[in-house]
Amino acid sequence: MSVPITPVLKDELDIVIPTIRNLDFLEMWRPFFQPYHLIIVQDGDPTKTIKVPEGFDYELYNRNDINRILGPKASCISFKDSACRCFGYMVSKKKYIYTIDDDCFVAKDPTGKEINALEQHIKNLLSPSTPSFFNTLYDPYREGADFVRGYPFSMREGVKTAVSHGLWMNIPDYDAPTQMVKPLERNTRYVDAVMTIPKGTLFPMCGMNLAFDREVIGPAMYFGLMGDGQPIGRYDDMWAGWCVKVICDHLGLGVKTGLPYIWHSKASNPFVNLKKEYKGIFWQEEIIPFFQSVSLPKDCTSVQKCYLLLAEKVKEKLGPIDPYFTKLADAMVTWIEAWDQINSTGTGAKVANGTANGSANGK
Amino acid sequence: MSVPITPVLKDELDIVIPTIRNLDFLEMWRPFFQPYHLIIVQDGDPTKTIKVPEGFDYELYNRNDINRILGPKASCISFKDSACRCFGYMVSKKKYIYTIDDDCFVAKDPTGKEINALEQHIKNLLSPSTPSFFNTLYDPYREGADFVRGYPFSMREGVKTAVSHGLWMNIPDYDAPTQMVKPLERNTRYVDAVMTIPKGTLFPMCGMNLAFDREVIGPAMYFGLMGDGQPIGRYDDMWAGWCVKVICDHLGLGVKTGLPYIWHSKASNPFVNLKKEYKGIFWQEEIIPFFQSVSLPKDCTSVQKCYLLLAEKVKEKLGPIDPYFTKLADAMVTWIEAWDQINSTGTGAKVANGTANGSANGK
Repeated sequence: MSVPITPVLKDELDIVIPTIRNLDFLEMWRPFFQPYHLIIVQDGDPTKTIKVPEGFDYELYNRNDINRILGPKASCISFKDSACRCFGYMVSKKKYIYTIDDDCFVAKDPTGKEINALEQHIKNLLSPSTPSFFNTLYDPYREGADFVRGYPFSMREGVKTAVSHGLWMNIPDYDAPTQMVKPLERNTRYVDAVMTIPKGTLFPMCGMNLAFDREVIGPAMYFGLMGDGQPIGRYDDMWAGWCVKVICDHLGLGVKTGLPYIWHSKASNPFVNLKKEYKGIFWQEEIIPFFQSVSLPKDCTSVQKCYLLLAEKVKEKLGPIDPYFTKLADAMVTWIEAWDQINSTGTGAKVANGTANGSANGK
Repeated sequence: MSVPITPVLKDELDIVIPTIRNLDFLEMWRPFFQPYHLIIVQDGDPTKTIKVPEGFDYELYNRNDINRILGPKASCISFKDSACRCFGYMVSKKKYIYTIDDDCFVAKDPTGKEINALEQHIKNLLSPSTPSFFNTLYDPYREGADFVRGYPFSMREGVKTAVSHGLWMNIPDYDAPTQMVKPLERNTRYVDAVMTIPKGTLFPMCGMNLAFDREVIGPAMYFGLMGDGQPIGRYDDMWAGWCVKVICDHLGLGVKTGLPYIWHSKASNPFVNLKKEYKGIFWQEEIIPFFQSVSLPKDCTSVQKCYLLLAEKVKEKLGPIDPYFTKLADAMVTWIEAWDQINSTGTGAKVANGTANGSANGK
């Protein structure tokens, strides 16, 4: 591969990958990912050995590691669901996170050029967002674009970008019913745009190809309780997206979506998905109005404070739907406690540092 | 030209063109526009004859026509400014309007195919909008796209689309300061997307390439008082856009932006533009927070009621900025009176029908 790369933010970004299999998919990403540090979160059987192609700098955590590092607080980390990836966000020591699924490959732009997804995410994160007013030529900070006539000058500085949500060519991220109805649909439309999701608007955040500023929004990137022992799956990233968006809106942070694309190689089984999703399909009809109407008080000035208040409201407003939400609200509190413990600046927390305690097959 | 066309909505759509010159630009649009009826609003000197290429079905109004048809109410129609185009919206008898500037030509898509802008606008208007929740794959009703995982099923019907805002290749729609700073910038990025502008979010609506459902939103499409005798210009479409968006949000209607592109041929003079715009550049810093916070009461169930209430609030909240806004608020009321008079279903209004009273060079 002769693709020239500039490893921007090389020492400030970790790539988090949840997986249950050997990471052969990294071969295709080598020119883009090799300069960066990987955090691999091994889901499922911890006795299984996950092979990582040579030459990558990584640490790997399996369930035993998570249990050892977090102790009883490990209950907030999902098992047998890609939601476990958020453990990687917690133990990272970097400012930025990029997370990608192991069935995602390098996509090509319409000229046939391989897309350096990470580089585009970094561009998105390092330029401001414009949540207060819509710019019809999309991202005004992009080369060849600007704010159009009628865009207030006082808003042209924008706000700090917290999240960059990338998209997928080939297999679109559909729910089970849509997968069943349109089994052959493939996303072939390359939309050459990045845009800010306006303030006050929720969106379905997919965790397949996602980057964020861990320092500014990390504690809200909790992927909830999914998978083993839970009544629901495939809502991990959605849950995180709703919480993150409400908190970003409250704190004046921006969320972008659009470029970069990755190539999503295979559709998951719609029948299995339906089983995981069907409660969520009902519940989201109440969850979304809840998130659309929830408001955070002015004294919630940190992500942690916002998140804990949101947990309270989840318990109060969504608890009556199903006991699951009471459990989830408790897990949200545990997550923040675990985050603060792992990320405390005191020396005591160093023991819980992933780099020091990662599995033997980590570096 | 061998472009195959399907004249959709042939008898339900008028094309409104404000102009001060011969309409040679129509030659390029002939394969797309010829099946439709044109309403030409001649600005400036009414004694001048505007030539329209042969074969087009049109009616033409100059200032004398406007004065004769509206009488004293003609004061609400701007003179020496393309804002005069809204007179065409008022006298149309059709359900849909497409309006385009006479320096806009047929653009090509990335494959080199000429873009039938009108056909795309009609597609946008005839499919629903999704203002309540963001879809990351853009317009879910487009071929090859759908609602993504996590999009609430109860919202998938969408809402009626009231406005389709199209974009421009080549000369971007910049304000005078941006034109001055970036005199050579051209828009070369073809973004293959249509999207709904979310509820609660304002946008800068450009009148260059715009379609709307006149029956559902027409009375709010007032382009204000601009040009001759007014302290401001180039804010006509912006003003309409702010009012329209607030009213669409209140009435549960949708506004789309994106495709289709037209080719905007020439940049207007930035020095002349600055003179027209400079008050607007200050004023918009107060106007936009006003529109962002204005709320309409539940009993405003028609566009007219909404618009008259907005006029009251403009007088009250923006009047203190400059006497211009008091005059504008009065003109907003006059506009609604004139609209209702011209569009009354009673026979009395027929006298004011443009088709019956258009200039002699109309058909």
